Amino acid sequence: MSDTMMIAVEPLKEFCRQVLRKVGVPEDDARLSIDVLVEADLRGVYSHGVVRLPIYAERLRAGVMNSAPKMVTRRETPSTCIFDGDNGIGMIVGVRSMEVAIEKARRSGAPSFISVERSNHYGAAAYFAEQAADAGMIGFSFTIGGINHMAPWGGREAMLGNNPFAIALPTPCGFNIVLDMACSVAARGKIIVAAANGDPIPPDWALGPDGQPTTDAVEALKGLVQPVGGPKGYALTLIIGLLSTMLSEAFFGSEVTHLYEDFDNPQNIGHLQGALPIELFQDMDRYNERITKAVEEMRNTKPAAGVERVYLPGEREHLAREAAIRQGIPLGHGVLDDLRQIGGKLGVPFDDIVTGRA
Amino acid sequence: MSDTMMIAVEPLKEFCRQVLRKVGVPEDDARLSIDVLVEADLRGVYSHGVVRLPIYAERLRAGVMNSAPKMVTRRETPSTCIFDGDNGIGMIVGVRSMEVAIEKARRSGAPSFISVERSNHYGAAAYFAEQAADAGMIGFSFTIGGINHMAPWGGREAMLGNNPFAIALPTPCGFNIVLDMACSVAARGKIIVAAANGDPIPPDWALGPDGQPTTDAVEALKGLVQPVGGPKGYALTLIIGLLSTMLSEAFFGSEVTHLYEDFDNPQNIGHLQGALPIELFQDMDRYNERITKAVEEMRNTKPAAGVERVYLPGEREHLAREAAIRQGIPLGHGVLDDLRQIGGKLGVPFDDIVTGRA
Repeated sequence: MSDTMMIAVEPLKEFCRQVLRKVGVPEDDARLSIDVLVEADLRGVYSHGVVRLPIYAERLRAGVMNSAPKMVTRRETPSTCIFDGDNGIGMIVGVRSMEVAIEKARRSGAPSFISVERSNHYGAAAYFAEQAADAGMIGFSFTIGGINHMAPWGGREAMLGNNPFAIALPTPCGFNIVLDMACSVAARGKIIVAAANGDPIPPDWALGPDGQPTTDAVEALKGLVQPVGGPKGYALTLIIGLLSTMLSEAFFGSEVTHLYEDFDNPQNIGHLQGALPIELFQDMDRYNERITKAVEEMRNTKPAAGVERVYLPGEREHLAREAAIRQGIPLGHGVLDDLRQIGGKLGVPFDDIVTGRA
Repeated sequence: MSDTMMIAVEPLKEFCRQVLRKVGVPEDDARLSIDVLVEADLRGVYSHGVVRLPIYAERLRAGVMNSAPKMVTRRETPSTCIFDGDNGIGMIVGVRSMEVAIEKARRSGAPSFISVERSNHYGAAAYFAEQAADAGMIGFSFTIGGINHMAPWGGREAMLGNNPFAIALPTPCGFNIVLDMACSVAARGKIIVAAANGDPIPPDWALGPDGQPTTDAVEALKGLVQPVGGPKGYALTLIIGLLSTMLSEAFFGSEVTHLYEDFDNPQNIGHLQGALPIELFQDMDRYNERITKAVEEMRNTKPAAGVERVYLPGEREHLAREAAIRQGIPLGHGVLDDLRQIGGKLGVPFDDIVTGRA
C-alpha cells in the first residue's frame, strides 16, 4: 500500500478506546468494540476496521446510537431467541448475541439461531462466525448493511444493501476456514478511492444514476453498486437481508436509514447468528482428521503460473494478522486524518498516543 | 429457445417413470424422483431436469447407484442426525432427508440440521429448500457437486465441484423466495453448447488446461470453470462443499468420483439440509405482513431502461412453471435424442409415449 504509515497495534487500540470512552461507552464495552474493530485491520480488512471509528463515535455523540445499552432477549426457547440490541454498538451486540447462540447450542444440544434486532453496523461478519468456530461449532453470521446502494436486478433504485455474511469452520491447522463476503462485484470503498484519484472503474462495478453501467467513478458514487454475478448477487443480497430482518422487527428495504447521513433515527439493523455444534454429527477427532486432509489438498493443489501456492479462505487473513501484530497496521493518510479529527473533537490527542510524538 | 420441441408434462413424466421402473426403482420412488426432476424443467432450470435422467438410469443399471435403498438415520438427537442415503437416487434421498429435518424441527421446536451421506447427485437444490418453505420454515440445502471441475483460487487442478446451495423463504404471495445458485460464473452446460456450435466464450468463464483464461470453448472443457467473483466464488464453493461433507463420511476433494465417467464406485455425495421454523421467532401473521411488504417493494422498484419490472428470485420460476403446465416443456433435440436412446436401451418407447406418434 502506498501513502500509508505503519501504526503499532496497542497505541492504536488505546486511542480508539479513549475515543469511545469520551462518548459515554463503558470501559468493558469500549475495549471489546475496539478489539473487534482492530481485529479487522489486523486481518487486512481495512474497510471494516478503525476507518469506521469516526462514524460510530459521531453517532454515539449524537445520541442516535446508545452508548450504554440494556440488551435483552425475548421469545426465548432453549435454542433460539430474539436478541434486542437496544441500539448499542454493533460490535457489542454482535459478540453478545453470538455468545447467546453458542451457549444455547451447548446447553440444548441443538443448532442455535438468534435473530437480532435494534442493532447497528457491526463491522466484519467474520468475527462473529469465528466466535462459534473457536467454540468447536460451525458459525453463521448474516447481517443487513447500513446503507442501501444496490438495486434489485433489473431495477434502478437503491432498495438493498450490499449485505454481507460469514460462515466459519474450525480446523486444527491454526486458523479457521472463513467465508466472509458481501454481494457486490467490488467494495464501494474501491470506487471512492478511484473517484478521489480521478481513475476510471471497470464497467461491471457500478451503475450511474440513470441505471446504466458506467466507468466514471464519480457518477458511480451517485448511482448503485453492481451485484456479483448479476442476478446471483441480487438473489444472495436479498436473501441475506431477509434472513437478517424478517424473523424480528429489524428494518428492511425502504425502512433502512443511511449510516453516514441520517443522525436522527436509529438504524435498527438486524442480524441472524447461528451456531451448529460439530459434535452433534461427528466426533471431533474424526472431523479434525477429515478437515485437515481437505486443507492439505487445497494447499497442495498445483498452482497456476505465477502463483506461489493456494490458500484457504481465512488463512491469508490469519497470516496477515500475525505479521501485523509484529509490524503494525498500515493505515492511509485519509484514515489517519479522520482519526486525528475525531480525536481533536473529543479531546483525545491522536499523535501523542499513536505516533508517540508527545 | 431455438431447435426445441414442446413436450407435454404428463407423457414426459410417464416415459421417465417407466425408464426408472425398468432399472429396478420401486413405483413410489420412481414417481417421486420424476416429480423432482420434471419440477426443475417446469421452472425453466433445464440443466437439472430430465436431461439428467439418462445418467441416473445408466448408473442405476450399472448397479453403481442403488435402486432400492434402505435409508437409515444414525447419531440421532431431537433436532439433528446423520441420514445415510444407502446410495439411493439423490432426489429421493434429498426429499426424505428434508422431511426428517422438517419433522424434527416441528417436534423439537428447534432449528434442525441433517447431514446426509451416501447420497447421489440430487438435481436442483431449490426443491428441497422449498419443502421447508412450504412447511412454514426457512429451508437451507447445501450439496457437493458430482464432478470436480473447479480449482481452488490460484490453483490449476480440479479439486472442487461447482457446489450449489439453496435458501427458501415462504411468502403469502403465491411463491417462495428462493435463492438457488452454484459458484461458477457460467454453468458448464453453456460451455458445452458453445463448443458444439464452435462459438467463443467470454474470457471470464473458464481456464484452459494450462490454468490460464481461455475464450476457446473446446479448450475450456478440458480445463476448469471459473468461480463467480474470483476468490469469492472459490471461498463459497469450498464452504458449501465442506458443510455438505465434513459432518458425515461423505466424500470431498480427491475422494470425489466423476458422475459421468466412473461407473465402478458409488459417489457418496453429501448434503446438509436445514429447517428453521419461522414461528420460533415471529408470529406468522406478522412475518407474512413484513415479507409481503418486502416483496412489493422489490416489485415496485423503478425499473432500468428496457426492463418491464423487477422480479423476486423464485418468482420467474413460479411463472415459468405455470406456463409450462399449460404449454409443455421446451426440450432441445439433443436432450430428446438422449431420452430416446435410453428408452431404446431399456425398451421404453419414447415416441409412442411422449409425442403420441404411436
